[in-house]
Amino acid sequence: MAEITTTVTQTLEALLDSKKYGTLKDILVTLNGADIAALLSELPHNRISLLFRLLPKELAAETFVEMEPDVQEDLIRSFSDSELKEIVDELYMDDAVDLVEEMPSNVVKRILAQAEPETRRLINEMLKYPEDSAGSIMTTEYVELRPDMTTEDAIKHIRRTGIDKETVNVCYITDERRRLIGAVSIRSLILAPEDNTMDQIMEPNVISVTTQEDQESVAECFAKYDFTALPVVDGEGRLVGIVTVDDAIDVLTDEATEDMEKMAAITPSDKPYLKLSVWSIFKSRIPWLLLLMVSATFTGSILTHFEGALASCIVLVSFVPMLMDTGGNSGGQASVTIIRGLSLHEIEFSDIFRVIWKEVRVAVLCGVALAVVNFAKLMLINHVGFSVSLVVCLTLVATVFTAKVVGCTLPILAKKIGFDPAVMASPFITTIVDALSLLIYFAFARMLLGL
Amino acid sequence: MAEITTTVTQTLEALLDSKKYGTLKDILVTLNGADIAALLSELPHNRISLLFRLLPKELAAETFVEMEPDVQEDLIRSFSDSELKEIVDELYMDDAVDLVEEMPSNVVKRILAQAEPETRRLINEMLKYPEDSAGSIMTTEYVELRPDMTTEDAIKHIRRTGIDKETVNVCYITDERRRLIGAVSIRSLILAPEDNTMDQIMEPNVISVTTQEDQESVAECFAKYDFTALPVVDGEGRLVGIVTVDDAIDVLTDEATEDMEKMAAITPSDKPYLKLSVWSIFKSRIPWLLLLMVSATFTGSILTHFEGALASCIVLVSFVPMLMDTGGNSGGQASVTIIRGLSLHEIEFSDIFRVIWKEVRVAVLCGVALAVVNFAKLMLINHVGFSVSLVVCLTLVATVFTAKVVGCTLPILAKKIGFDPAVMASPFITTIVDALSLLIYFAFARMLLGL
Repeated sequence: MAEITTTVTQTLEALLDSKKYGTLKDILVTLNGADIAALLSELPHNRISLLFRLLPKELAAETFVEMEPDVQEDLIRSFSDSELKEIVDELYMDDAVDLVEEMPSNVVKRILAQAEPETRRLINEMLKYPEDSAGSIMTTEYVELRPDMTTEDAIKHIRRTGIDKETVNVCYITDERRRLIGAVSIRSLILAPEDNTMDQIMEPNVISVTTQEDQESVAECFAKYDFTALPVVDGEGRLVGIVTVDDAIDVLTDEATEDMEKMAAITPSDKPYLKLSVWSIFKSRIPWLLLLMVSATFTGSILTHFEGALASCIVLVSFVPMLMDTGGNSGGQASVTIIRGLSLHEIEFSDIFRVIWKEVRVAVLCGVALAVVNFAKLMLINHVGFSVSLVVCLTLVATVFTAKVVGCTLPILAKKIGFDPAVMASPFITTIVDALSLLIYFAFARMLLGL
Repeated sequence: MAEITTTVTQTLEALLDSKKYGTLKDILVTLNGADIAALLSELPHNRISLLFRLLPKELAAETFVEMEPDVQEDLIRSFSDSELKEIVDELYMDDAVDLVEEMPSNVVKRILAQAEPETRRLINEMLKYPEDSAGSIMTTEYVELRPDMTTEDAIKHIRRTGIDKETVNVCYITDERRRLIGAVSIRSLILAPEDNTMDQIMEPNVISVTTQEDQESVAECFAKYDFTALPVVDGEGRLVGIVTVDDAIDVLTDEATEDMEKMAAITPSDKPYLKLSVWSIFKSRIPWLLLLMVSATFTGSILTHFEGALASCIVLVSFVPMLMDTGGNSGGQASVTIIRGLSLHEIEFSDIFRVIWKEVRVAVLCGVALAVVNFAKLMLINHVGFSVSLVVCLTLVATVFTAKVVGCTLPILAKKIGFDPAVMASPFITTIVDALSLLIYFAFARMLLGL
């Protein structure tokens, strides 16, 4: 894929050098906006605006919204005021709001200055919605119909206004106070008799979200109900915008990435890795490393406490890595499974005892299996002796048990008290389990080896 | 949410007890299939079929496909042949194929026996596609138009046949040999003059996938291009089906879950956690625990090798947990970031040196920050002494450095040689980094403490 891109960009640059603009335009119009944006990002910045100007208006807008913010900023700086106005007028409202959110303030000033007064007003209104809410990802270009319209009227209305809408696949019916009372699919409109009215053919039980709703639960609505668009209402039930499925897909992808980062003890960021500065990556990782390092020294102090026991039976030390690693891996397996289950709403707080009971049984099976294999290895290969092998293997069973119980319980409890369960993942659980497993280790050693 | 569900199911059961079937039906038809399926799953099995029979045909099919396989199986066993036929005839092809894949063979025999011959033929054909390919998730109910059709003809065609299609939002134009030559959105059809022909208004550069394409790259197409449907062609370029965006969302969710499970050293499964048996969870976890335990014993043997050094300076032992945990956390941060970047195609193999250079600089910053804090703590709080503190802190810097370089490199190399990079995550990297960091630890101890 990278090789094909290099070849294509070489061709584009060669055509640019020989000023074959007609050929270039013919090539570009066969492509999709997302692909053109990907190709342009491989070119040097001074060439991007040259190629961009060859695109017809609609394709130019499609391409513009798919570009990375730094490329968008460069392009805007290269635009004349009228070129900027053309792009801004073509953008759908949610893309215009996204753009304004990403650009530095002097660029934003130019954008708003070129926008129509109505557009400017809407952008400013939508910027007021909380970050990552339905209001911040919705768009205002939807089809709105009246309940007394006939099918014939409705289709005429769509013919007149449909070109500017984000989607016409679902249309919304509102009453005289703009309150949302129904939805009708374009399919139903086409299939219905011409004289039926909207209130006869619409679906009155419309699932909607409020402007304040978190984008994550909006995206989950799409995953659950198979919609292509979801209406957004204000506190009075008035229709103010729609969220389309493509935005929901972006939210789902971002939320999954965020969960993975939290589970690895990283503060999530919303930029692609290669666009992040070394300093920002450092800042997203160091707080957790410091916190976890300090709590790991607590585990170390347990070893200090038992220095005497270790010194008198130094072979005990060599099993510490295996015990700690196995505890960490066991806990990680349980916690990641539960965290993902909570995130997909397959597990709720009320399931906590079912989950613990299941993990207890899995832990016993895993612990015994590991202990048996380890016991055989210690006795037959390492020739360590019965008592020491027993201490190690009993600790192994106890470690796996503790790890899985702690690993499945902490995320559920965290969610119950309002924390993000993804933070209660392997790094934190490992710290707790390490300490517990060392205490158990030395307890068994004391019991069975008389230390 | 759980509390509301309990209240609603109590109401439903009460109405069932008093045989108020009309009221029940009135309630159910206001709901969406996904919600009805969720409610029914809370009821005892003998009541589910009673409530299910109250649903009108289309809503019954919508609800049926949203149910868990075990509930579907029970329902089918309770159906008469004609009731089964009604459901099967209502299903879209991709849902019918999913059902047949999940049911035991005696139930499948009944389903196929009740299906229309054409449906039976199509199901059998689609079952032949590789698991998790475009062919296995596509459906055959799409709108197909001829290039010489006028807009008026096309809309008449949709009026006649549209009721049975999975979607009419995008229509596909094929030539006389059924090869895909263009696509037209319903919006373009409505907005176009009545006498325009399809080949005039269609988009000829249609992005499509083959039946063999992996479902993950199909889903990525949706994320990239903002489609609501994607056509599927065979080896000859003939249109054989479409994938709709709701299926793509399910695939994206499943693939993210799979990646998280692999990164936690679990063999992925495709059932919700609470539906998995203890034995199957055990089987998905124990191979990795065994493998990682055995490789951790290698790390333990390094400690055995340096038993003498440890015995003579026992305080060195207490820092081993902190060094190993910090190495594991640092490596995990790097590897998860890179694995997700590879998965979202934000990072390619050709970026490997940029990635390593970035991680090296982050590692130096993190390592030095951690070492400084730790040094201060060791000298001022633990009173450990300058030489030992130096050994520990130098090892800390080296550990973090090694961890991040190994953590960012292994996933990229794994992908290059064809392995799933998600497997090269924290558990494996921790094992490698632990061993290296202990070797470095004792090298520094030997150098600076003369052991």
